[in-house]
Amino acid sequence: MCELLGMSANVPTDICFSFAGLLERGGRTGPHRDGWGITFYEGKGCRSFKDPLPSSESEIAELVKRYPIKSCAVVSHIRQANRGAVKLENTHPFIRELWGRNWTYAHNGQLSQYQRALRSHHFLPIGNTDSERAFCWLLDQVREKYPKRPSNMAPVFRFIASLCPTLKELGVFNMLLSDGVYVLAYCTNNLHWLTRRAPFGKATLIDSDWVIDFQQETTENDVVTVIATQPLTGDERWQKMNSGEWVLFKQGELVSRGGE
Amino acid sequence: MCELLGMSANVPTDICFSFAGLLERGGRTGPHRDGWGITFYEGKGCRSFKDPLPSSESEIAELVKRYPIKSCAVVSHIRQANRGAVKLENTHPFIRELWGRNWTYAHNGQLSQYQRALRSHHFLPIGNTDSERAFCWLLDQVREKYPKRPSNMAPVFRFIASLCPTLKELGVFNMLLSDGVYVLAYCTNNLHWLTRRAPFGKATLIDSDWVIDFQQETTENDVVTVIATQPLTGDERWQKMNSGEWVLFKQGELVSRGGE
Repeated sequence: MCELLGMSANVPTDICFSFAGLLERGGRTGPHRDGWGITFYEGKGCRSFKDPLPSSESEIAELVKRYPIKSCAVVSHIRQANRGAVKLENTHPFIRELWGRNWTYAHNGQLSQYQRALRSHHFLPIGNTDSERAFCWLLDQVREKYPKRPSNMAPVFRFIASLCPTLKELGVFNMLLSDGVYVLAYCTNNLHWLTRRAPFGKATLIDSDWVIDFQQETTENDVVTVIATQPLTGDERWQKMNSGEWVLFKQGELVSRGGE
Repeated sequence: MCELLGMSANVPTDICFSFAGLLERGGRTGPHRDGWGITFYEGKGCRSFKDPLPSSESEIAELVKRYPIKSCAVVSHIRQANRGAVKLENTHPFIRELWGRNWTYAHNGQLSQYQRALRSHHFLPIGNTDSERAFCWLLDQVREKYPKRPSNMAPVFRFIASLCPTLKELGVFNMLLSDGVYVLAYCTNNLHWLTRRAPFGKATLIDSDWVIDFQQETTENDVVTVIATQPLTGDERWQKMNSGEWVLFKQGELVSRGGE
């Protein structure tokens, strides 16, 4: 299994605190030694940092933890390989361009008998993970249904959510997907989220002794949602997602949700 | 104008020395203050570091300069904006997936009246530079001509080279393009290259006082080609490319060339 981390915010926000908690699980407090990656959106552009090295030993991860890149949408992943060797091309998040936008995706879980079920035409996997194949299949379905970019993207994400049960039937499919404006989370068995907004309080990482006082770091209008496989802090109320449930965030706010 | 830097090598080689020379031009010895980017291939995977900040002030650039990421194919760019604002989505290199491979591209120059001439369908620009539009147009032509991945990629690169004069007619088009195995360089007015092989000697950067003794850094079988807008070292013989000329490298060796 792997761990996912996502963020949606209404003002550019750094994710150093949450990312630091995730990184501890990349070889130190957790078994996820097979690489890590993180993608930050800035406008329509995005930049990714990736490493097939364990995150707890990665110099690049140290930089990202320390360097406050501010973003309104983030997708991150640390990997414990099951399908696909430990290589850069198998390291999440995966990115494709669709309609002149960057689409970013990360998956936690494992699929079976997916080779035939998940054929794609427009988008092809570069590595050999079940995860990237599922991503290409999802985007292929989207491109078939919407040959041109719709002006309203919320229905596109609801369409994607409607495809996820097909992937869940193939195994465990916990997922984060973003176009830089929306962040979609789909849960099979392990995904939690929380929204921070005024009045802000203090929070303590479970995996290290870092305590943050969000009151000092935010303005009263900030809305920041964090999504993670397991809660990252011990003193906040994380919402556990149900099996088959999906949630869609925009600018930190929950804009749509559904489930089986 | 911008500056390009590319590398093709037969063993994974770090580009710290050449990149350090390039970075000096990003705001210190040169006027290219509008961002920088570099893509390293590792197998079929690649990772990019990008920043809309001047490279001479970028903490991420400092890490890349110091941290020896070893690669057989590298594409890098520092930007002095002409078309398109200083934003992350306008920062080179640009990347797209075609046939399950990462294609990476950077452009130096400026095109005019390109909006109508360079329409594309499969690949769409994310930012608003002439450069990315030309990249999408090139890949669209390739996908039209080769709906499936050919087993031999050299003809694909020769086909791409045959399209470049059309772009040169629209203005200045110096370009680097790689699929991770081949590196293609096309010149309108400013591009130089050299191949380092045994017996290796010393080299001194023009833009700083860094001297390297490649004898100490290499084995006698290493073949490393560096391509740059302007020569990076003062004591080596760089080959200046002619207008309309293209060169194609694989594993450091020149495998094909042509021109008008």
